[in-house]
Amino acid sequence: MKNSLYIVIVGCGRVGSYLANQLSRVGHSVVVIDADEDTFNDLSPDFSGFRVVGDATQLAVLKEAKLKQADVFFATTHGDNVNLMVAQIARKLFNVPHVLARVFDPKREQVYDQLGIKTICPTLVAAEMFLLAVAGGPADAGDVKP
Amino acid sequence: MKNSLYIVIVGCGRVGSYLANQLSRVGHSVVVIDADEDTFNDLSPDFSGFRVVGDATQLAVLKEAKLKQADVFFATTHGDNVNLMVAQIARKLFNVPHVLARVFDPKREQVYDQLGIKTICPTLVAAEMFLLAVAGGPADAGDVKP
Repeated sequence: MKNSLYIVIVGCGRVGSYLANQLSRVGHSVVVIDADEDTFNDLSPDFSGFRVVGDATQLAVLKEAKLKQADVFFATTHGDNVNLMVAQIARKLFNVPHVLARVFDPKREQVYDQLGIKTICPTLVAAEMFLLAVAGGPADAGDVKP
Repeated sequence: MKNSLYIVIVGCGRVGSYLANQLSRVGHSVVVIDADEDTFNDLSPDFSGFRVVGDATQLAVLKEAKLKQADVFFATTHGDNVNLMVAQIARKLFNVPHVLARVFDPKREQVYDQLGIKTICPTLVAAEMFLLAVAGGPADAGDVKP
């Protein structure tokens, strides 16, 4: 990938704002979209990207975020359906090469997969980390932190 | 650790039920506690552990789950406060050697740490996986699945 990427993030909750801050800090161009302007308060003072207030399922909002230029698209809202929908729009209508969506319900992962959307499931990840703690024994159990 | 562990899991949501099913399948003795009996429907038909219906912040409920015998204790409810409280009880009052709690708010991790409770934060884990996808480039981005 290029050194500096154009990254559009939908959802400025805990995960979205964390990503926006980290990616902006290392020099990527970041645009964050959220319908709730208050969520932008979680962006750090040195966040150098853009904020777009609006419903990301609306094409006009995605156009305002210049989604066509994006190298990477992250759907991080709390709604699996919203994430699925905007990820599909980003992949199919705006041809964004790398589209990742957060999906809470593991049963939906397969649907995403079939639609060409890569998914990250915090539920499964958390579960695997718990299991690792049991498998690893006492010493490892003490280190189970992301 | 012993081959067959006595594991108490509080919360039978997606993570809790997934853990209970997996751990029971590999031969551990598992007890799941949840205030909502309906959540036990997510346990697989071959789950061989015990179900305890009740509020896990009540000592009587934890005693019913024979927490004193537990090798491992997992707090997986959706409430950070509940998870913190029951994890502390398990560690301090029942002397469970391995106590892990899910905590959604990363800011609270430090508090848990100071109380001797190991934490797993799905928020941070998910965020790190998104970041990994960007850092890893196109090939890796396609493999970002737990």
